Amino acid sequence: MPHYKAPVEHTLFLLEDVLGIADYADLPGFADTGPDMLRAILGEGARLCEETWTPTNLEGDRTGCRHAPDGSVTTPESFKAAYRSYCEGGWLGLAVPEEFGGQGLPSLLNTVMQEYASSANLALAMYPGLTQGAIAALLVHGSQEQKQTYVPKLASGEWSGTMNLTEPHCGTDLGLIRTRATPNGDGSYALNGTKIFISSGEHDLTENIVHLVLARIDGAPAGTKGISLFVVPKFMAEPDGRPGARNGVSCGAIETKMGIHGNATCVMNYDGATGWLVGEENRGLAAMFVMMNEARLAVGVQGLAVSEVAFQNAVAYAQDRLQGRALTGAQNPDGPADPIIVHPDVRRTLMEIKAVNEAARALILWTSMRSDIAHRSPDPQARQAALDFMGLLTPVVKGVFTDYGFANAVAAQQMFGGHGYIEEWGMSQFVRDARIAMIYEGANGVQAMDLVGRKLAKDGGRAVMSFFDEVSRYCRAQGEHEAMQPYTAPLAESLGHLQQATMWFMNNAMARPDNAGAGATDYMHLFGLVAMGYMWAQMAEAALRRREDPQARAQMEARLVTGRHFMQRILPETALRLKRIETGADTTMALAADQF
Amino acid sequence: MPHYKAPVEHTLFLLEDVLGIADYADLPGFADTGPDMLRAILGEGARLCEETWTPTNLEGDRTGCRHAPDGSVTTPESFKAAYRSYCEGGWLGLAVPEEFGGQGLPSLLNTVMQEYASSANLALAMYPGLTQGAIAALLVHGSQEQKQTYVPKLASGEWSGTMNLTEPHCGTDLGLIRTRATPNGDGSYALNGTKIFISSGEHDLTENIVHLVLARIDGAPAGTKGISLFVVPKFMAEPDGRPGARNGVSCGAIETKMGIHGNATCVMNYDGATGWLVGEENRGLAAMFVMMNEARLAVGVQGLAVSEVAFQNAVAYAQDRLQGRALTGAQNPDGPADPIIVHPDVRRTLMEIKAVNEAARALILWTSMRSDIAHRSPDPQARQAALDFMGLLTPVVKGVFTDYGFANAVAAQQMFGGHGYIEEWGMSQFVRDARIAMIYEGANGVQAMDLVGRKLAKDGGRAVMSFFDEVSRYCRAQGEHEAMQPYTAPLAESLGHLQQATMWFMNNAMARPDNAGAGATDYMHLFGLVAMGYMWAQMAEAALRRREDPQARAQMEARLVTGRHFMQRILPETALRLKRIETGADTTMALAADQF
Repeated sequence: MPHYKAPVEHTLFLLEDVLGIADYADLPGFADTGPDMLRAILGEGARLCEETWTPTNLEGDRTGCRHAPDGSVTTPESFKAAYRSYCEGGWLGLAVPEEFGGQGLPSLLNTVMQEYASSANLALAMYPGLTQGAIAALLVHGSQEQKQTYVPKLASGEWSGTMNLTEPHCGTDLGLIRTRATPNGDGSYALNGTKIFISSGEHDLTENIVHLVLARIDGAPAGTKGISLFVVPKFMAEPDGRPGARNGVSCGAIETKMGIHGNATCVMNYDGATGWLVGEENRGLAAMFVMMNEARLAVGVQGLAVSEVAFQNAVAYAQDRLQGRALTGAQNPDGPADPIIVHPDVRRTLMEIKAVNEAARALILWTSMRSDIAHRSPDPQARQAALDFMGLLTPVVKGVFTDYGFANAVAAQQMFGGHGYIEEWGMSQFVRDARIAMIYEGANGVQAMDLVGRKLAKDGGRAVMSFFDEVSRYCRAQGEHEAMQPYTAPLAESLGHLQQATMWFMNNAMARPDNAGAGATDYMHLFGLVAMGYMWAQMAEAALRRREDPQARAQMEARLVTGRHFMQRILPETALRLKRIETGADTTMALAADQF
Repeated sequence: MPHYKAPVEHTLFLLEDVLGIADYADLPGFADTGPDMLRAILGEGARLCEETWTPTNLEGDRTGCRHAPDGSVTTPESFKAAYRSYCEGGWLGLAVPEEFGGQGLPSLLNTVMQEYASSANLALAMYPGLTQGAIAALLVHGSQEQKQTYVPKLASGEWSGTMNLTEPHCGTDLGLIRTRATPNGDGSYALNGTKIFISSGEHDLTENIVHLVLARIDGAPAGTKGISLFVVPKFMAEPDGRPGARNGVSCGAIETKMGIHGNATCVMNYDGATGWLVGEENRGLAAMFVMMNEARLAVGVQGLAVSEVAFQNAVAYAQDRLQGRALTGAQNPDGPADPIIVHPDVRRTLMEIKAVNEAARALILWTSMRSDIAHRSPDPQARQAALDFMGLLTPVVKGVFTDYGFANAVAAQQMFGGHGYIEEWGMSQFVRDARIAMIYEGANGVQAMDLVGRKLAKDGGRAVMSFFDEVSRYCRAQGEHEAMQPYTAPLAESLGHLQQATMWFMNNAMARPDNAGAGATDYMHLFGLVAMGYMWAQMAEAALRRREDPQARAQMEARLVTGRHFMQRILPETALRLKRIETGADTTMALAADQF
């Protein structure tokens, strides 16, 4: 059975040495994150994920969810206690304001916990994950009454949340939504329609489920301008806080999927279900986007999370499995063969995953820190700058780290040879689970278009110019130190590629938008590489400082090597991405649709 | 349910216009491959795969194989008739010499049929595929009696074959094999041991199963020098050709796997099973390598095959699914949205798969043609040259096309959004099935080491130098035609990268073998890219000729565009691969094993 050890040391290194969390002590919620508290929180969360959640993962995959004729859905047996422990530990409401029953701690720590939990059991982590998305939408767009009715129940984990967007004919293009909302005359609406692919849509982990649903009010304009957001509880919320009468929403079927078997993916039927408008009429997409941005960041975290646990198991296997001899002579002369970690191609694989994972964790926490600043800083300029970066980096984190998450899970599986292909070892599950993250919350091609088509040009390119400026200044300043040059020199070169690609879009996409579309995925990855390179430079800077401490020295040296591996072996891909972008759309768009 | 249409037009283009099969009419078996005959054979094979095999694929995945307490294994119900049709059509013995019951046709056509069959149903195609591997080993190394006893039964499909190499503690490193063979005194041996991951090890499609088994004769030297090859039938072969007494070999369990559910992956127990030596004592590995080379080429074909069928289904979905509008304005103004094939990122994905698949098919048939020349040409020099190229290209075809096969299946799945993740559409199955090809018959890292560690230096580098010379001369000669320059110029540049990488290994790997190991996978892919580029140049050359024919013009123009897409968007990766190789092993090998 796969094992998992939460990467607490690296997380602390990032929070303290790279992000300098101590400098933010005056932000609300950050006062309680001094070194001891941080260690206590992370240690407690790590233990829960390692000891309580990890053992449920393989069973969840094997058992899956069951849908009964009465519409009820049963989750894997071991999920119940694991979910309860999570709620009882207060993890679900970690970053929820105290007035709504949460702990008011930084989102940053919630992001850390999302990673650990998703490594331990992705399918299970999705239940609280969607609840957190629902909380975010209600906190921003809900009425005071809606907040008070739902958020405390959601934050405690007694109730759970869902997002209902997709319909059979309508995924990315939400303008096609058909689910109708008819005013009941009492301020509520009757919802009718069918939603599909609803994660956690129905299950037995909570006493109530709060659905956030996109629908079209009778007579609303066509397209995306006529979509509103509704809250539709499975059981009516009674004044005493207990679930009341059953609402007209039910699970019609659950899907048989490639992975995340422990999470129920439901067809949800709305048959005159009572719902209440969240936010303004016809402004549902904007409201849902709050939820989706949170969710997109969380999905990027899932990519890292599965990559990390798959990596850890691949390392353990490579240290243990004896096969062949090192090219440089036997390393385990008394055994029948050497552990396969002696083989350069095995190491290359492991080093690549390691170098990507550590940069991904850094960028995710860096982005999550922007979210905290954007929501908690007293300085409007700091808030705006943080929001800019969050908007810019969200599609990058989602698209790039879920692509890497899957590719890394596959690479880790490869280390096991045939043993990776059989279900017994759990590596196949990691691959099958990781696959979904490239698809949901906006397929990665949609993330790329969001980045290139919307985020680049937003506010006259303010966010991207400011990012380039920050990285560029960093390279110049740090490049003066010789020890930093192996990091800053390649980073500066790759930043140049990114700037050149951005310029190329500016010069070529206006006249022909397909030139941007054809290069969007390459651009997203180019951006991700540069952002990861920037993180590695900062990690190197921190490691160079920390290695003065004899106790940390060996670990910091290892980190510096890993960073150089990234710079030498992974970052050079930026040149290829640029070259592909600059070929434009000619060959991509040349064939007629029926010539494929 | 997924559909499949065998790519007969492209196959014929390759055989006739690119490989010039008509020029080989004097080779044994090639006389019967004139244009009409070729169309008849391919058309018949295509129909079988499309109509009879394709409908069994999804059921095979869902049902899988069942292992009963008596050791018997039941395959999916629909497999029986599909397998029978294949045998009755004579497809299994297509390239087997007529004296052993085959049709004596070129291996080239067998390779084509392997592709079509593996696209239609990979798990089912593995049964005849392994039989063909067993036939190859027996024809080369078996005694006349062994050939006469087994080959006609195998070629007719009445009996099937297996390869028994892997043991629980021993995969790549066959020197660790423990299965023992004890002389019975009558020329036979008693085999004892356990083999795992034996594809088609037990099933109900044939009346007998012929196992080829690696084992160690009592007292044999340790390591690979003490391994012998044995033939062990499930039922003894009686003189009248009927299966006789049950032998002491049985299936102890079947594996639960990520994919290829319709193929039984067995734990095989040898309990004093009677076997007969094939070839010489202690020379079993060499004999098995004949089988493995055939098998490796066939696995490369599997990569292409799954990529092709996944691609076809992605194209159909992209033409059909309405979502969003083209960046350049509505293309389907009367519908609610445009088909997603209008989106540049969707097209980019489809063009990349198409460009790789067509090059892969060309290189596979080119390599298979070398196999025919190597075995059938009267000219010893031509035979040797063909053998050189086959040995060189086999690991490339296996490693590169199974990596692409899987990546392309994933990319094709991505086109379906959430629908790709649920099992109903069959895209998940393609991904799960394609995954095994990167692992079995030598994991792709092992292929890379075979290429770099053995094939490059073999015979003083004769094969690789001769390949470079051929491509280089081709670029010079064809580069004189302006219409060919968009193909020959990038190819020449990438060939330069490959030559530079080869030189780098020569200069740096002798002193430090890890420098070769750390770059092996990059080198394999660099080689594959150049070889695919060479194929695209030849396809472009043929397409430029053929487009003079007005009827072929549109198709040939599309082919020329696809070739340019390859040259502009895919081939430039060679520069990145070279750069990675030239960084050597420093960062790859720097960490201690426990620092990962």
